[in-house]
Amino acid sequence: MRPALFLALPLLFASSLCGAQTTPDKPRTSADILAASSAEDWRRIDPENLLVLELPKGKVLIELAPRFAPQHVANVKALARERYYDGLAVLRVQDNYVAQWGDADAKKPVKTAQKNLPAEFFRKLDDTLAFTPLGDVDAYAPETGFSDGLPTVRDVNKGAAWLAHCYAMVGAGRDMAADSGGGTELYAVIGHAPRHLDRNVTLLGRVVQGIEQLSSLPRGTGALGFYEDKKQNVPIRRVRVAADLPVAQRPALEALRTDTATWSAFVDARRNRRDDWFIEPTGHIEVCNVPLPIRAIKTASKK
Amino acid sequence: MRPALFLALPLLFASSLCGAQTTPDKPRTSADILAASSAEDWRRIDPENLLVLELPKGKVLIELAPRFAPQHVANVKALARERYYDGLAVLRVQDNYVAQWGDADAKKPVKTAQKNLPAEFFRKLDDTLAFTPLGDVDAYAPETGFSDGLPTVRDVNKGAAWLAHCYAMVGAGRDMAADSGGGTELYAVIGHAPRHLDRNVTLLGRVVQGIEQLSSLPRGTGALGFYEDKKQNVPIRRVRVAADLPVAQRPALEALRTDTATWSAFVDARRNRRDDWFIEPTGHIEVCNVPLPIRAIKTASKK
Repeated sequence: MRPALFLALPLLFASSLCGAQTTPDKPRTSADILAASSAEDWRRIDPENLLVLELPKGKVLIELAPRFAPQHVANVKALARERYYDGLAVLRVQDNYVAQWGDADAKKPVKTAQKNLPAEFFRKLDDTLAFTPLGDVDAYAPETGFSDGLPTVRDVNKGAAWLAHCYAMVGAGRDMAADSGGGTELYAVIGHAPRHLDRNVTLLGRVVQGIEQLSSLPRGTGALGFYEDKKQNVPIRRVRVAADLPVAQRPALEALRTDTATWSAFVDARRNRRDDWFIEPTGHIEVCNVPLPIRAIKTASKK
Repeated sequence: MRPALFLALPLLFASSLCGAQTTPDKPRTSADILAASSAEDWRRIDPENLLVLELPKGKVLIELAPRFAPQHVANVKALARERYYDGLAVLRVQDNYVAQWGDADAKKPVKTAQKNLPAEFFRKLDDTLAFTPLGDVDAYAPETGFSDGLPTVRDVNKGAAWLAHCYAMVGAGRDMAADSGGGTELYAVIGHAPRHLDRNVTLLGRVVQGIEQLSSLPRGTGALGFYEDKKQNVPIRRVRVAADLPVAQRPALEALRTDTATWSAFVDARRNRRDDWFIEPTGHIEVCNVPLPIRAIKTASKK
């Protein structure tokens, strides 16, 4: 009767990515494009650059962004390696905004890591940063696009680039001073992109798998969505750098590269949906509405 | 130590809206503006235009949009009045997308209401529609703004206006045909605004309170986020038009009017945050990032 309702990308991802044939006389959907992608269109997510946050009901995998926040990324890895996060908790879940975990009181001592770091709100625009422009206008910034798979703003006049606060992006909570964060508290965006936070907090990565472990948590009823009763806190079993896990436990994921013709075709198929369900073509897209396709690496190719 | 982290609007709303003084030499924050608002800046939400969806853990209040989807609104009210939704369930929760409830199989018979209606994807642009332009560019549309408190697109060339798929907007699920919806299934946006759905589905209102009852539900693991096991379905206790409830049970809410100088000042304070925490002013805002302030009407003024 009414099985389909409205079609969305996750279904397309869930379906087999192999063996689909493209009909030449029909415009390709994003699923068609992924199905026809080659091995070279994908990049392996470096386990040295992947954080594994283990919550009671499952894992949250966060790819770090060392080209945008090198000091914060190094510090978060140092915190994970000194077991800083283990036993702390998710203590704030504010609807349509963020979920936050770590040590809100900043009472837990650090060992080799730092409590606070200089802000890394933006970086210098130079040749070392690959950037694939999106091409659509943006309400907040002169130009948006993708660098290392991440939603990125480029401002040629300022000679700067920075990450955009899209859904699932991860940042370092801070107090009033710009240099009052460092990674002892982290947050992930679980609602409509709060782009007014861009260049106001250091973003250091993005959840590539398991965001629902954070986004479906009960909302806190205290100010800013903090849990009022500490019993509501969601305990962190442990946080590890994926590279430190035994091979059998190490997540093996690939992300679609964002500097290829396949990526451009994929974005265009999201900008102009060719799936049968759509009636009115959109013709535009916004940087936070382009998902990054992620897939498991088959066990045989696991190193 | 680190109590504030980052400041967000809900806290401001949670704080008293009465008695705050504006310091003339300091730019006003959105909280200051709401605190200084007058009774005339607010409008009562008409109980005849408010749907109450009762779930096991709480209520979801949906203000309907009769000026955009008159037939769908009338039909949803007819469905509520014939107790159509009672005993059905939330059966789909797709992360960063939608939560959906009703009768996915369209098997339950309707009495006075309709199963399917002609699409109401957009409406004619005429003098009967108040429209307050936002003034910022939009990735998807020539012009955005607010009508009756709702995020709205205006296209002068097309002579049309339509609602935007922002967080908490509610629409009528449909199958492949444009006229295959009518309100027997409804969905609410629980993620980043899926604006590609604009003009592809009929939007008929917005959750004004209780969206967390939907957004914090476990995500479905089936295709499109449907719950695979029917035991996961979240039962609907009942759906009522607020006007049909006994006065003591009837929600009494006010929304900030979107056609006043107070509204314009509020939007501008969201565009350029003056809260002490912000370091880099944004200078821009996007239609889905402007929240609609809602407050309870004091019992004394309840009719």
